[in-house]
Amino acid sequence: MDIQELRTRNPDHWMRATAIRALALDAVAAANSGHSGMPIGMADVATVLYSKHLNFDASRPDWADRDRFILSAGHGSMLLYSLLYLCGDPEITLDEVKNFRQLGAKTAGHPENFLAKAIETTTGPLGQGIANSVGFAIAEESLRARFGKKLIDHNTYVIAGDGCLMEGVSQEALGLAGRYELGHLIVFWDNNDITIDGKVSLSDRTDQVARFKASGWHVQEIDGHDPEAIDAAIVEAKKTSQPSMIACKTHIALGHAAQDTSKGHGALTNADQNDAAKAAWGWTSGAFDIPAEIKTWWEEVGARGAAEREAWETRFAETSAARQKEFTRVMDGEAPKKLSAVVKALKKQVSETAPKVATRKASEMALEVINPIMPETIGGSADLTGSNNTLTGDLGVFDTDNRKGRYIYFGIREHGMASAMNGMGLHGGVRPYGGTFMAFTDYARPAMRLAALMKTPTVFVMTHDSIGLGEDGPTHQPVEHVAISRATPNTLVFRPADAVETAEAWEIALRQTATPSVLSLTRQGLPTVRLEHKNANLVEKGAYVLAEAEGKRQAILMATGSEVAIALAARDLLQAEGIGTRVVSMPCWELFEAQDESYRRRVLPPAGPVRVAVEAGVRMGWDRWLCGERGSAKKSGFVGMESFGASAPAEVLYDHFGITAEAVAEKVKSLL
Amino acid sequence: MDIQELRTRNPDHWMRATAIRALALDAVAAANSGHSGMPIGMADVATVLYSKHLNFDASRPDWADRDRFILSAGHGSMLLYSLLYLCGDPEITLDEVKNFRQLGAKTAGHPENFLAKAIETTTGPLGQGIANSVGFAIAEESLRARFGKKLIDHNTYVIAGDGCLMEGVSQEALGLAGRYELGHLIVFWDNNDITIDGKVSLSDRTDQVARFKASGWHVQEIDGHDPEAIDAAIVEAKKTSQPSMIACKTHIALGHAAQDTSKGHGALTNADQNDAAKAAWGWTSGAFDIPAEIKTWWEEVGARGAAEREAWETRFAETSAARQKEFTRVMDGEAPKKLSAVVKALKKQVSETAPKVATRKASEMALEVINPIMPETIGGSADLTGSNNTLTGDLGVFDTDNRKGRYIYFGIREHGMASAMNGMGLHGGVRPYGGTFMAFTDYARPAMRLAALMKTPTVFVMTHDSIGLGEDGPTHQPVEHVAISRATPNTLVFRPADAVETAEAWEIALRQTATPSVLSLTRQGLPTVRLEHKNANLVEKGAYVLAEAEGKRQAILMATGSEVAIALAARDLLQAEGIGTRVVSMPCWELFEAQDESYRRRVLPPAGPVRVAVEAGVRMGWDRWLCGERGSAKKSGFVGMESFGASAPAEVLYDHFGITAEAVAEKVKSLL
Repeated sequence: MDIQELRTRNPDHWMRATAIRALALDAVAAANSGHSGMPIGMADVATVLYSKHLNFDASRPDWADRDRFILSAGHGSMLLYSLLYLCGDPEITLDEVKNFRQLGAKTAGHPENFLAKAIETTTGPLGQGIANSVGFAIAEESLRARFGKKLIDHNTYVIAGDGCLMEGVSQEALGLAGRYELGHLIVFWDNNDITIDGKVSLSDRTDQVARFKASGWHVQEIDGHDPEAIDAAIVEAKKTSQPSMIACKTHIALGHAAQDTSKGHGALTNADQNDAAKAAWGWTSGAFDIPAEIKTWWEEVGARGAAEREAWETRFAETSAARQKEFTRVMDGEAPKKLSAVVKALKKQVSETAPKVATRKASEMALEVINPIMPETIGGSADLTGSNNTLTGDLGVFDTDNRKGRYIYFGIREHGMASAMNGMGLHGGVRPYGGTFMAFTDYARPAMRLAALMKTPTVFVMTHDSIGLGEDGPTHQPVEHVAISRATPNTLVFRPADAVETAEAWEIALRQTATPSVLSLTRQGLPTVRLEHKNANLVEKGAYVLAEAEGKRQAILMATGSEVAIALAARDLLQAEGIGTRVVSMPCWELFEAQDESYRRRVLPPAGPVRVAVEAGVRMGWDRWLCGERGSAKKSGFVGMESFGASAPAEVLYDHFGITAEAVAEKVKSLL
Repeated sequence: MDIQELRTRNPDHWMRATAIRALALDAVAAANSGHSGMPIGMADVATVLYSKHLNFDASRPDWADRDRFILSAGHGSMLLYSLLYLCGDPEITLDEVKNFRQLGAKTAGHPENFLAKAIETTTGPLGQGIANSVGFAIAEESLRARFGKKLIDHNTYVIAGDGCLMEGVSQEALGLAGRYELGHLIVFWDNNDITIDGKVSLSDRTDQVARFKASGWHVQEIDGHDPEAIDAAIVEAKKTSQPSMIACKTHIALGHAAQDTSKGHGALTNADQNDAAKAAWGWTSGAFDIPAEIKTWWEEVGARGAAEREAWETRFAETSAARQKEFTRVMDGEAPKKLSAVVKALKKQVSETAPKVATRKASEMALEVINPIMPETIGGSADLTGSNNTLTGDLGVFDTDNRKGRYIYFGIREHGMASAMNGMGLHGGVRPYGGTFMAFTDYARPAMRLAALMKTPTVFVMTHDSIGLGEDGPTHQPVEHVAISRATPNTLVFRPADAVETAEAWEIALRQTATPSVLSLTRQGLPTVRLEHKNANLVEKGAYVLAEAEGKRQAILMATGSEVAIALAARDLLQAEGIGTRVVSMPCWELFEAQDESYRRRVLPPAGPVRVAVEAGVRMGWDRWLCGERGSAKKSGFVGMESFGASAPAEVLYDHFGITAEAVAEKVKSLL
């Protein structure tokens, strides 16, 4: 690449873009860690995007109708931080830039959405940003249909690298965006032909242009260092009704000794080489120093959208008060006041009629009363609609000709679904939930973890949650997946015992604003165990006494989900022998942990009674409650799974693996 | 579809294929669960493949040079079981077919490789089979290069459905197969346009033909019910040097009332409809009854490869005894005798020189002595070669012009890599290991679980295993991933403390024949803690006393990996205050659990001393050792992570999150 030619072809543009380059180079060198080459390579694209197209107001990064910018290639975080600082973002100051990658800085190694408002999503794990962006674009379509163009009409822009496109989740994202014709989604592919291990061709020779076209995308190929070409391509991309991919041929670490090499991907910290790069760029300012003229220009870019934003505020003020209130409510992620009432009514009805239903069906029953009063919910399933029970009557199906539809057929794409749901939640204004089998949390794991890290309250509806699914066998039978979800910080894992607990769990999940929920639900029918109606949401305590011991309390049985009924049956056996037995239902460990000591002590009184836990999963974690919480190792036991499951009818499997009331009672007696 | 036309066009073929259809229909109806439509739809393809192309001998399903057949669309398991029964497989008898999906049957809901020799892999979680097949094909290429065409020269055939192709992992598989020109890989796409939720077009409009071509595949499109077309396409596919995809337009549940509907995907159990389907097919035999003529024909198909197999045995017998022995050794997955010796020598050298190295570097040191004596190892990384330290000097790079190369650049495809490694292991003859960051076990999870379920000893080299990786921040810092791996049945999770333990862990991992291993390795340098050389492999015990208390034993510190050095430093602090402190290194919980009670009791003596565990991860599971194993809740504590990490230098983070020798010592004192 002839830097001289680039410098002279469009000198103003060049110096403005090079401000990004210089900041990235300086910040990475100061931190002695990070990724210099990508911001340097994509500075031209970013400069044209921000200065000519991105509709935003740097001073108000939370403006609801801003264009979203997602840096899927999150390792190039200094590109984003440089842009934000240059444009005058109130949170990403020069000090933050200088503090890149240091403790407490908003300029973390990879962009973290919860550190600054202008950071739309957390990226770094490759492919997540492009998959999130599908959710952003769906949310935009949905809200545009609901609230009209005057309130919602914006684009989602993404920069994705070769790594993003090699990750399988990108194919799921491509397929979804193509199928649903998400025309407001525009992806720039940083086509620099470099990965960490070497040239892209070392491990991939996919024709990405052909691949995107195969999934229904509009594709253009440009020189990613030519500002006119970048501008023209964005103009074109905005016109099409298809999602758009702009393949930008770029040079990683442009103008640096490491240009076009995998070394250029990482931290460029050699002072001489960095000085030489700056000289080649024609950049004469000191470290972190931006010439006033260039900073002023960038600040004007940052303020460019102020008028648009103000016009939007005027339009917003002109809409009815009710509409304003509703818009604000959903954008804030606030559940409607009616939620408690409909859940209570359902609980009452369930306690009275005591149906025997699977908790997946119970979940549908809850959604049937919730969805009508929460127009912000968007449901879906990864091709298991009838099994996950996620579709309710009134939702309508989201499609190219029905953007108001609130149900999404995600296809066989658990990972893409979960990432898209995260994107919807991050966009705001909609509240996504989606289903698959609990065993396939494995496929969705990267996005489920990110939901927790990003503090977005996605609801994962995971059905068929144990050997109780029967004949499909061990590939489909989760045994470790409840433990996996519980091991993840900032995640509420609900394993409700019946339709009452399921409704309570839904209410809690939908009240969250910063924590995702996993609903672990059965395929098989379960009796109602909450036969006495209570207005209070007992699941909110995490664990509670479901059945008290009669006579002297000699044993405490702890159980979740489908095993609560087994614990109750075991209690019957034990009580018949005069062994006073309490049953504690523990639908949500995390909420129980959050209770104060005195409550926890009331539910699980210190040593004395034998404690036996029963759950059709692995023991991992249960020792915390069996003996870690003032219990005793000698007087505690566990009835559950020690291996993978097997293929057979559910009842046969429960017998085969010894998860029965008899086994629980025997275990208690052996410990007494 | 005009069934009558199909019946008359090629009546012999029709009835032979319909034997599969009838068995599938009968078995699913008898089990009252399963998937009827796929075997019915793909019966023609399977019949042509088995009778004219698949090189196998049903009586010897473990013949090393057989063609491999992988049913990626695993829910259609009755297709495979029908084929095996019809061909006379010794394990899949008629009784097994009648016992479909029942406890103890080899005919599980989804094919499970460990139930019968002829089942090459475990499928059901969609996309896994096609991703495994890449590993099968790589293993075949590698062994062909090593042992010559006379011993290894076969094809890998796959049937994949729409679900397999929608899963992201399929794109990773496509990319790998295309890049490495795996010409012996032939995939049939069951293009029936149906998923569980409805038409494929409901959720996907990807042009699969264009997509496969974009990744360098040879593609043909045929009528999947036309035996001549099927035959001709396979002939063509075998000729090309590219991986081949044959798009077979088929009708799910062909001839049944549920044909071409999503109902046809599941269990067809309506007796009248099933009778009508059989009538339409012209099938007049009773349930599970195959006319003798047809069964005989199929048994001839099953015996078709006997001559080839015998010829191969002759060729094998003609090779040198040494070569025979080596071939047998690697196919049996037996580690070489020298392994212990080279590991011992390395351990001795490490103990003497006491280097401060990261355990990822220690892993490389181990591989440097192991790879030269284990020509069956195939290493790789998901684009983090320099970070995972997986490449050693002598391996050579696997490529189109170097099939002997033993290192694979997998690209940014953790999931595809893990699935491909499983495939290599299942093929046999090679021993795969591959690396990524520990946090990205999330991406590889579905395949890591399957490795455990399938009993294939894949080695997952997971580096950067805690906040100790520093500035890349919480997206890259595992906190729950060691717990996740430990929660998974049949998985050895090693978190070695230094280069000695790392070498010992490698030796154990490479001796496994039925259990995968996860090596959790640091980015940061660690001191050598095993300063006294011992021939015995201490990691084999899972946990052991690394440093004994001086004076009265008042505390036991338990730690793994990078925190062992912290525990030792805490011991110094405590001993300085006269508090006798034992340090137990626990590199592998699973192996410790497998020890007898008396050994476990010696390492963790019953109540008395305070127990404190230290690990830079979540507490989940530790209560088992703190108090569940004869400990005391009141006298135990944990020093580790309670949240996600942060972006900052490693030492800063250890201080910030309070994982220090001082904190451990304080915790002990607070409990005394």
